[in-house]
Amino acid sequence: MTKNRQILLASRPTGWPTEANFKLVETPVPQPAEGQVLVRNHFLSLDPYMRARMDAVKSYARSVEVGEVMVGGAVGEVLESRSPRFAKGDFVVGALGWQEYAAADAGAVTKVDTKLAPPSVYLGALGMPGVTAWTGLIDICRPKAGETVVVSAASGAVGSVVGQLAKAHGCRAVGVAGGAKKCAYVTGELGFDACIDYKAGNLHADLKAATPDGIDVYFDNVGGETLDAALARMNPFGRVAICGLISQYNATEPYGVRNFRSVLVNRLKVQGFIVSDRMELWPQALAELTGLFAQGRLKYRESVALGLENAPAAFLGMLRGENFGKQVVKLV
Amino acid sequence: MTKNRQILLASRPTGWPTEANFKLVETPVPQPAEGQVLVRNHFLSLDPYMRARMDAVKSYARSVEVGEVMVGGAVGEVLESRSPRFAKGDFVVGALGWQEYAAADAGAVTKVDTKLAPPSVYLGALGMPGVTAWTGLIDICRPKAGETVVVSAASGAVGSVVGQLAKAHGCRAVGVAGGAKKCAYVTGELGFDACIDYKAGNLHADLKAATPDGIDVYFDNVGGETLDAALARMNPFGRVAICGLISQYNATEPYGVRNFRSVLVNRLKVQGFIVSDRMELWPQALAELTGLFAQGRLKYRESVALGLENAPAAFLGMLRGENFGKQVVKLV
Repeated sequence: MTKNRQILLASRPTGWPTEANFKLVETPVPQPAEGQVLVRNHFLSLDPYMRARMDAVKSYARSVEVGEVMVGGAVGEVLESRSPRFAKGDFVVGALGWQEYAAADAGAVTKVDTKLAPPSVYLGALGMPGVTAWTGLIDICRPKAGETVVVSAASGAVGSVVGQLAKAHGCRAVGVAGGAKKCAYVTGELGFDACIDYKAGNLHADLKAATPDGIDVYFDNVGGETLDAALARMNPFGRVAICGLISQYNATEPYGVRNFRSVLVNRLKVQGFIVSDRMELWPQALAELTGLFAQGRLKYRESVALGLENAPAAFLGMLRGENFGKQVVKLV
Repeated sequence: MTKNRQILLASRPTGWPTEANFKLVETPVPQPAEGQVLVRNHFLSLDPYMRARMDAVKSYARSVEVGEVMVGGAVGEVLESRSPRFAKGDFVVGALGWQEYAAADAGAVTKVDTKLAPPSVYLGALGMPGVTAWTGLIDICRPKAGETVVVSAASGAVGSVVGQLAKAHGCRAVGVAGGAKKCAYVTGELGFDACIDYKAGNLHADLKAATPDGIDVYFDNVGGETLDAALARMNPFGRVAICGLISQYNATEPYGVRNFRSVLVNRLKVQGFIVSDRMELWPQALAELTGLFAQGRLKYRESVALGLENAPAAFLGMLRGENFGKQVVKLV
């Protein structure tokens, strides 16, 4: 009989994780209980937040315990349903974990429309990253037409949606990304007005040149020096959404934010958020994102790793910024 | 005829200002124009924000130019009125500057009730500092009964009102102040539940002990290490009002905020504000403050310097934390 393959957290990292922190195991394919579905995962999502779950320190969600299956969203096909809400052959998305098969409560997964978009898009632009972008930009920062919106990690799953939403709302969209290739994609394909290559070594000067009228909204995925550069350019009454601090997740010493004074001088609102705190916003967010997608105005790009066994390497590469667009693992 | 005495900004400071940055001059007493009043200032207010006005760098208000009268609030008596809104003998408060006499537009000053409170209180608990406390605590942080509110510079003009308002709203109020004497006043006289002496050298441990349930609201007047210590204790969905960063005003190198990660992990709202941005809140704020004052529930303390010529020394002492309560200069 077919086995399930799973990736467990083998040990907690200190600083940068390595493949030795993960362990591939074979287990029996689970039996769905009454009210559950058995899902064959097709795509696994890899996201920066997973790095925080590997630590034991207090964060916004409980840690993965050593020996547990790594957390993560996945999209897959229902092989067996013991719930009236789903039929064999449906595609569903949910927190199904780093594994090939999952038994999940019917209430914990959502059906997706594979005619509108390929399954993996429900892990990206039409999934958690897309709703994250919408929540931080639209709900928290409330951009007005004509304002300048800057987003870091601009070619990534969240950042790419932030900039396209900003454009749809009549804003000037400026991205920060690593490397000329990513920047060319951000302006050429995604339609941002400008993109700063932070690896070019002139972050502060380049950001200043790209934001001649200052910054009204900064959507931060990375923290560190990029956050400081953006703070220095903020306009009075600017809004800053703190979505991620990926530059800090593996730091052994925290970065000291030097331009904090801008918060006072410019009367900024700086707000941290997690998309799962505001589940009531998902329908509104997905309605707008789906509408843009159907019109061809929400583009995306994926880095696809092949096979569950390659998930740890792909995850580590993503933390180093080696992915280009949404990082997924194809499991089938 | 009587002369006016004024204190001008003589030069811009680098780092800590000195008395040499100020200059006392004698000028003719001004003649009020039509629509103006001539005011004899009785008390001059000294406030930390004035340090920022001495610099040429961009801040939320325009700088004082070298050779101009230093900005500042003052309360005084109308000697001559060329406006139907005021009569000789009225007491008024406004931005009348570091000087003994001022001619001011009628619309730029407000009449105060010296039967309810002595004139100087309209520079403190019932003036700009009181409304600042109210705006940051009540409007921005929206404390709920049972929550823990921490405020830095707790014995000062703003901090003392923040803690008493927090108590009036059913919160646990914890102050941070410099020295055992100030802390004894904060708990003994002002009724805070606890006060941390940051000069005792155990800021982080003492703050932890005084906030066993964490911090829900942090009202910051000082920035720097105190801000970092508070960030480390914030509860999920905490609110941080950035009112001042007095520890940074004379720093030549900005302090790097190390616990910024708490903004993301705890989904904090951090907001900088200036009381003058929200003039529409003043009536509501003053109504609550006046009510508490009339009930004897809004206590205050003043450090009173005597004579305009001593204003610079008193101002410099305040920047070093040598004042105890609201710093004013008695001019009559």
